[in-house]
Amino acid sequence: MPDRHLTNRLAKIMPVFDWGRRYNREALGNDLVAAVIVTIMLIPQSLAYALLAGLPAETGIYASIAPIVLYAIFGTSRALAVGPVAVVSLMTAAAIGQLAEPGSAELLAAAITLAFMSGLILILLGVFKLGFLANFLSHPVIAGFITASGILIALSQLRHILGIPAGGANLPELVTSLLENLHRINPVTLVIGVSATAFLFWVRKGLLPLLLATGMNRTLAGVLAKAGPVAAVVITTFAAWAFGLGESHGVRVVGDVPQGLPPLTLPSFSPDLWSTLIGSAVLISIIGFVESVSVAQTLAARKRQRIVPDQELIGLGAANVGAAFTGGYPVTGGFARSVVNFDAGAETPAAGAYTAMGLMLAALLLTPLIYHLPQATLAATIIVAVLSLVDFSILKKTWDYSRADFAAVSATILLTLGFGVEIGVTAGVVLSILIHLYKSSRPHMAVVGRVPGTEHFRNVERHKVETDPTILTLRVDESLYFANARYLEDKIYDMVAARPGLEHFILMCPAVNEIDMSALESLEAINERLRALDVKFHLSEVKGPVMDRLNTSDFLHHITGKIYLSQHQAMGELATDTSHSASIP
Amino acid sequence: MPDRHLTNRLAKIMPVFDWGRRYNREALGNDLVAAVIVTIMLIPQSLAYALLAGLPAETGIYASIAPIVLYAIFGTSRALAVGPVAVVSLMTAAAIGQLAEPGSAELLAAAITLAFMSGLILILLGVFKLGFLANFLSHPVIAGFITASGILIALSQLRHILGIPAGGANLPELVTSLLENLHRINPVTLVIGVSATAFLFWVRKGLLPLLLATGMNRTLAGVLAKAGPVAAVVITTFAAWAFGLGESHGVRVVGDVPQGLPPLTLPSFSPDLWSTLIGSAVLISIIGFVESVSVAQTLAARKRQRIVPDQELIGLGAANVGAAFTGGYPVTGGFARSVVNFDAGAETPAAGAYTAMGLMLAALLLTPLIYHLPQATLAATIIVAVLSLVDFSILKKTWDYSRADFAAVSATILLTLGFGVEIGVTAGVVLSILIHLYKSSRPHMAVVGRVPGTEHFRNVERHKVETDPTILTLRVDESLYFANARYLEDKIYDMVAARPGLEHFILMCPAVNEIDMSALESLEAINERLRALDVKFHLSEVKGPVMDRLNTSDFLHHITGKIYLSQHQAMGELATDTSHSASIP
Repeated sequence: MPDRHLTNRLAKIMPVFDWGRRYNREALGNDLVAAVIVTIMLIPQSLAYALLAGLPAETGIYASIAPIVLYAIFGTSRALAVGPVAVVSLMTAAAIGQLAEPGSAELLAAAITLAFMSGLILILLGVFKLGFLANFLSHPVIAGFITASGILIALSQLRHILGIPAGGANLPELVTSLLENLHRINPVTLVIGVSATAFLFWVRKGLLPLLLATGMNRTLAGVLAKAGPVAAVVITTFAAWAFGLGESHGVRVVGDVPQGLPPLTLPSFSPDLWSTLIGSAVLISIIGFVESVSVAQTLAARKRQRIVPDQELIGLGAANVGAAFTGGYPVTGGFARSVVNFDAGAETPAAGAYTAMGLMLAALLLTPLIYHLPQATLAATIIVAVLSLVDFSILKKTWDYSRADFAAVSATILLTLGFGVEIGVTAGVVLSILIHLYKSSRPHMAVVGRVPGTEHFRNVERHKVETDPTILTLRVDESLYFANARYLEDKIYDMVAARPGLEHFILMCPAVNEIDMSALESLEAINERLRALDVKFHLSEVKGPVMDRLNTSDFLHHITGKIYLSQHQAMGELATDTSHSASIP
Repeated sequence: MPDRHLTNRLAKIMPVFDWGRRYNREALGNDLVAAVIVTIMLIPQSLAYALLAGLPAETGIYASIAPIVLYAIFGTSRALAVGPVAVVSLMTAAAIGQLAEPGSAELLAAAITLAFMSGLILILLGVFKLGFLANFLSHPVIAGFITASGILIALSQLRHILGIPAGGANLPELVTSLLENLHRINPVTLVIGVSATAFLFWVRKGLLPLLLATGMNRTLAGVLAKAGPVAAVVITTFAAWAFGLGESHGVRVVGDVPQGLPPLTLPSFSPDLWSTLIGSAVLISIIGFVESVSVAQTLAARKRQRIVPDQELIGLGAANVGAAFTGGYPVTGGFARSVVNFDAGAETPAAGAYTAMGLMLAALLLTPLIYHLPQATLAATIIVAVLSLVDFSILKKTWDYSRADFAAVSATILLTLGFGVEIGVTAGVVLSILIHLYKSSRPHMAVVGRVPGTEHFRNVERHKVETDPTILTLRVDESLYFANARYLEDKIYDMVAARPGLEHFILMCPAVNEIDMSALESLEAINERLRALDVKFHLSEVKGPVMDRLNTSDFLHHITGKIYLSQHQAMGELATDTSHSASIP
């Protein structure tokens, strides 16, 4: 059966060989229906996100075609829809915005190169199984970052609603620039923008209950309610065409969009450009991966499916490389589009391939129709979409639960708003790591005593326990490593110095999962210092793996006391010993 | 007693008010003897380190005067001698070497500014009690860094021994530059350099046993053996003067050294210079602090004294600010000079003040005498001093004990040699932190069962234990936080999926010292996922502080199972429950 072996191995690298073998007519039907719905929804969304990234509108469509197909081949989620998303578009704008004029060929080349670099980084992370790196983005940091990004995105789109020139990469810049240009508001644009925004908010909040009230099936009603942007696009485009609105009235429309399939493009290999973009590419890869994996996991859980994070990296990496070669820009798995795909009944990644075909047809045939589409309408779709991401409840949740997490999330929000997405998310990650290190550098320790009549030993400050004045037992609730080794030393010296009659010091280690070289040297120093004070140094409840490690060192030959399996045993032996020696006058 | 209160408070900020009150004639005598010995030793050492830093020789003397007095006022160690040291001099050379010509006024200004910035950083760290940050330099990283620095320093001094021009900030540069200039060796310089080096090695290894054999007191013999550099300086200076050796023979001598007290100098406040130097200033502060504190702790331990690390920061900070205003460069507590001070019997920091006076006299009176001092002699004293720092045994020790520590130490050595001190030590710190995070991101977990006939639960893979097929208990040996929350989720899903008959899942938390917001969200996700699979989710042996924290969240209202104080209690209740439900057909 060499064939089956080959297919099984291929199925690991390209999951398409797994689900493709079982593909049948029913799945085909479901996938096709989902594809039609997603295609219709994606057209305005893709155009809008491309404008958000500062790129020509068609780039958004191109970025939805090859990537969706490549993800269908290499990805592991059944329902994830890959393409341009709001946060990554904003990050792309931040990364390349300063490099060239908006709409220029240089800017497009930079976007393509950025997609290629992100793809490469994702594939490398996948090949070397480094997906766990994404775990260093804590949930609160992600929540804070998404909320702050949503505000920045909404503000950056306000200029299209108002019809004024404005820009900026952070809150102060955006607000100043909007206020400075406020006198130049274009009334016609404002009318279009405000009505489109109001309409879309109504569709989101009011249409669904209305449709359900007519007795419509919930899934269909949900999909229809999500088609609001399409209606807004059709209506405002028709209105702009009918009233002859355009540049002459100060109304910016999408204008000429090339008609045809995605072009073949090549990333730049200029070392200058690469060194400029590398930091942004890393951030975009990680943020995109985290967003995508969390969407994929949520959807997979609903159908009791599993996704494979390291394979997801390969799938997303291939999608980004695909975007780079077909005139796109960085992409990832999007929440809104994936949920629509899932709700519309997509069964396999083939739905994505059919969506890609739909978008290809749109690129071939529909582009002339969107000449009159007002940019204000696209801005309205973005604003309504991203405001649903803004959620400050994480502030209250973390405030109640953990001040350290609260510090991380508020710093991420403030720094993202104040200094832009790249500094914001970097600071959030660095801060969470620093907070974690700080906490583990001052571990919780407790002097313990025996709970009367049991073998249990508990904190003397929390429980009524028995202690022996000649024996001091300290339980340390953290692995011992370089960051807390000296702190432990200092604590022990202080405690021992405060107890003149002490004969035995027991370090109780049930929560010590590791003792590194620095901590081992500190234990040796403690042993020597206690030896000088005539206090014996013992360890109790050392875990198996830690004991294995200690056995490779000299420490166990030098220690003045013993290693006890249980604290009960230690107290039994030492307390007897003490009463014995105490009975000698 | 308002006076005593004031003095007690002052004594905390300025320990001089503590020991100063009890100063007596005996202490004065001991301090004076120590000061004379240290002064004699410091003269050649200070000149040599200034040349190592690329600065005029007298800078080394200046950097030993005000700093030593300021440390005596603000520092907490009784024996620490502050001044120029080898590693900090090398780091100063690396920081300012590219900024200006050797010996130029600009270079001196940069060195003064660097000292001022380091002083400021140290004082800020002290005021905000951030001394614990130094703990992130693990023992192996420090050991590797010191060894690699010693090699770089010795190599950088080889050119003075050979009498050739050469330079470089890392091993490849130094070796290439030395080899390229090897044909220009100056024979006279070589003779002086090699004999001085040989003499100093002999003093270090052979003189002490010889003196002890004559029946000399061990302390006196030790101090005399450390005076070797002074003898080398006197002999070679005399020889150079007597034979009229100098630039005409290609022998570089110290030359004109200004005669007088340290000048009043001011640091530059140029933002450009500050932004260039800030990274180096941070590294020099931290490395200097770590070196100084470890010396101070070693010496304090010998006399059962304690030092206060945060107050040490203030003391060293004041010393560096002092160096900046008196024509010096970055200083710290040095190992060699402190040990000599201690061995010579210094009782209080006043010994430092007397040393400062001795050096002032030297700066006033002795500088004309060192005109003929060959630079080769100074290079020899440096080489002999730093080669004692080179110690590769840390490689073997870490290899045997912990591969992670071995990786950190070998990376530190290789990167310091290959790319210089700044990259080397930064990489060492970053790598140790990454290794720690990586380890804690994949915590040790064990499925546990009851040790027959006891209340103890142990790893099923290490012990013969009893388990129940409807109950799975997983003990996780690490705090739960953002970096390992998803890993835990994945592990639990895999385990539960592999056990179809499962009814209860118990997460046993005796080693869980913290559950952060991300981990809490993961626990909620696990609870929901297990609920869907009809498996109840319980926790056991949750620690007091963790339980307090969980009580502030909603989680305890949602959990499908219970929280048990002990695993024994959990098994008692659930196992009964199971046998009961199993008895129903």
